[in-house]
Amino acid sequence: MTGSAEIICVGTELLLGDILNSNAQYLAQQLAHLGISHHYQTVVGDNPLRLAQTIAIACERARMIIFTGGLGPTPDDITTATIAEFFGTPLVENAEVLADITAKFAQRNRTMSANNRKQALIPSGAEILPNPQGTAPGILWQPRPGLHIMTFPGIPSELHTMWKTTAIPYLQAQNWSNSIIHSHTLKFWGVSESGLATKVDNFLKLENPTVAPYASDGVIKLRISAKARSLEEAKQLISPVAIQIKAIGGTDCFGENDDTLGDAVGRLLLTQKTTLAVAESCTGGGLGAMITAVPGSSTYFMGGIISYDNAVKERLLNVSPQTLEKYGAVSAAVAEQMAMGARRQLATDWGISITGIAGPGGGSPQKPVGLVFIGIANRTDTWHIECRFGHRKSREWIRLMSRNTALDVLRRALLGTNKAV
Amino acid sequence: MTGSAEIICVGTELLLGDILNSNAQYLAQQLAHLGISHHYQTVVGDNPLRLAQTIAIACERARMIIFTGGLGPTPDDITTATIAEFFGTPLVENAEVLADITAKFAQRNRTMSANNRKQALIPSGAEILPNPQGTAPGILWQPRPGLHIMTFPGIPSELHTMWKTTAIPYLQAQNWSNSIIHSHTLKFWGVSESGLATKVDNFLKLENPTVAPYASDGVIKLRISAKARSLEEAKQLISPVAIQIKAIGGTDCFGENDDTLGDAVGRLLLTQKTTLAVAESCTGGGLGAMITAVPGSSTYFMGGIISYDNAVKERLLNVSPQTLEKYGAVSAAVAEQMAMGARRQLATDWGISITGIAGPGGGSPQKPVGLVFIGIANRTDTWHIECRFGHRKSREWIRLMSRNTALDVLRRALLGTNKAV
Repeated sequence: MTGSAEIICVGTELLLGDILNSNAQYLAQQLAHLGISHHYQTVVGDNPLRLAQTIAIACERARMIIFTGGLGPTPDDITTATIAEFFGTPLVENAEVLADITAKFAQRNRTMSANNRKQALIPSGAEILPNPQGTAPGILWQPRPGLHIMTFPGIPSELHTMWKTTAIPYLQAQNWSNSIIHSHTLKFWGVSESGLATKVDNFLKLENPTVAPYASDGVIKLRISAKARSLEEAKQLISPVAIQIKAIGGTDCFGENDDTLGDAVGRLLLTQKTTLAVAESCTGGGLGAMITAVPGSSTYFMGGIISYDNAVKERLLNVSPQTLEKYGAVSAAVAEQMAMGARRQLATDWGISITGIAGPGGGSPQKPVGLVFIGIANRTDTWHIECRFGHRKSREWIRLMSRNTALDVLRRALLGTNKAV
Repeated sequence: MTGSAEIICVGTELLLGDILNSNAQYLAQQLAHLGISHHYQTVVGDNPLRLAQTIAIACERARMIIFTGGLGPTPDDITTATIAEFFGTPLVENAEVLADITAKFAQRNRTMSANNRKQALIPSGAEILPNPQGTAPGILWQPRPGLHIMTFPGIPSELHTMWKTTAIPYLQAQNWSNSIIHSHTLKFWGVSESGLATKVDNFLKLENPTVAPYASDGVIKLRISAKARSLEEAKQLISPVAIQIKAIGGTDCFGENDDTLGDAVGRLLLTQKTTLAVAESCTGGGLGAMITAVPGSSTYFMGGIISYDNAVKERLLNVSPQTLEKYGAVSAAVAEQMAMGARRQLATDWGISITGIAGPGGGSPQKPVGLVFIGIANRTDTWHIECRFGHRKSREWIRLMSRNTALDVLRRALLGTNKAV
């Protein structure tokens, strides 16, 4: 069996924005891993007419329709009844499901309401997709030759369990999944999305594996995805492309897949057996938080000083009052003294500092919001990087870019490609 | 102008499950607030044919189509060109947009690539929907009478800014919004979702306003939503319900709408004209980062010490080596000494500390992963709170709960409801 799948998520709460549609993402990932192509996701409310119209559209373009939501006991749960009616099939009460629901209520010492009986109604001819956790089972159904339907409740944990225990074996048994899609992501910092796309232009035209750029939180990513009959074969398709792209990316490429800049820095510090301390002003501790998000970071990260107030810069980091007076807290000289101070106070090999104007207030024509200095110190040298993240950017964005840039500056220093000048 | 809107999110990364579709939720919430009905959301990949087919379907049932994604500079960004082609309209290079993109590259000292020029191509007759943050502007366009199109980039922060600054005024000027849904959210810490739901049971049955509980990142929320012809009328419906629920919630209710625990603490410190310092171990600076996420926090927040290593606890926070030896770094005694040390070293009125086992390693039967001590010190007293966030919980969750709990402990201390015993 081949063809493409389609996801229909049913629920007015999705249309009101009350909940994030994590079910669509989960199913999308699962379909990708199984190599089942999927071209559309639709969200529709608890409205029988609109759901029926959505089913009509999906039937024209997909061989499998996966529904989530609308299987509950309340009157607004209309998924099963609407599907049955669309295909002109009567609902029948399934004795096995009814017994299971009754047993679950007894087990929890709760009274089963008349509403719950509705959950035992299944289109004639459909199989049960059991729900070990909740009272709403799904269905597995071929209402017409070549069209497969699966329904799941909207509760993510129930969907996940049902997908793993029943849907995956079913799809494999039906030979839906005879090829898989495997992806490998390379991550970059210090290059723009368009700049990187230009550099790897030729690769973006590949068909298998495909290479696609995207960006999130300032990190630029290239996802290399291969379609193959096995994971091994997919990896063989990906590997040479990844090697070539890494060579083109050079030191801008800091990691792969789930790697963060914190991981990249951590690996280098571990390998080089060196230690790190931070001094943070406008990021208020966020750089330390990113570094310590990495399990085992206590091996190389000693800690730091959050010197939000100038008095703290003087007292705990030995920043000179004259320097603060002459250049201001947001300056190259103060950034360097903060990095040195952190290194000395915490007795580490490396010190890194951030001082800047995160906004929304505090900017001036000379020192606009978004101006950030990153200081870096090791046993022999101290230097700095000046950044301008944009005076219209949000406080959150400026702080995020400051943290990531500081990590990248340190990473390049550890690689020996960014040095005191 | 009336009729319903429809959301189309463009991006293969959504179909592969690489990212969560937070944009659809954001737009859904915004449309609900404006009282603009919206019946469908569709996700489609970076495929011109499928996108065109999706547009054809949406045109039949909606008066407004809102697109997100696919406005970037790379070849797989096809939204603008596909829309223009669908409506048989040529693309023209917009000089103003080109100048803006050029200026943004110059400002960041980056070279503009030929790719970026593509982002200045706009369907003939469309208006620009300016993007103050990024290089990809959107469009506002009526390709045929009675059909409105808006496009936004996929980057959430850019979408949010563009929606607030341009889309909302446009929709109001066009009279799209004649009845509105206004929501007011009350936020709670220190009570479970089901516990709170039981307490406010009667309110959950109301029809206008409705009251709905939900939870995210450990914060429990009650959203009170009223449908009315004006904001004033909606607020009048909400106000008495909010007052009653706040009275029931008592000190568990820490804020409203966008308030964080950091905002709540900040307001109290400002009012009481007192200052704060932190000492962080397992959170590595994350508590300071949350406090300084609040603009203007420099008035009351002096900074802190990230004492990840025990030597730093001794040297910079004056934690006694004997206490560390006897009770270990994760202990009530060390938490209290850290809080005292932070307060003294930074010369503040309040000191708050966190020391705990965030995992995944480092746990023992006596001190399991998830065990966290929060210390608190003021000019007269020092005390602590012991927390167990669960040994199977993730490092990320334990660190998040630690930060929020520390803020809540401080909040209650500032309110005088949590004191040394």
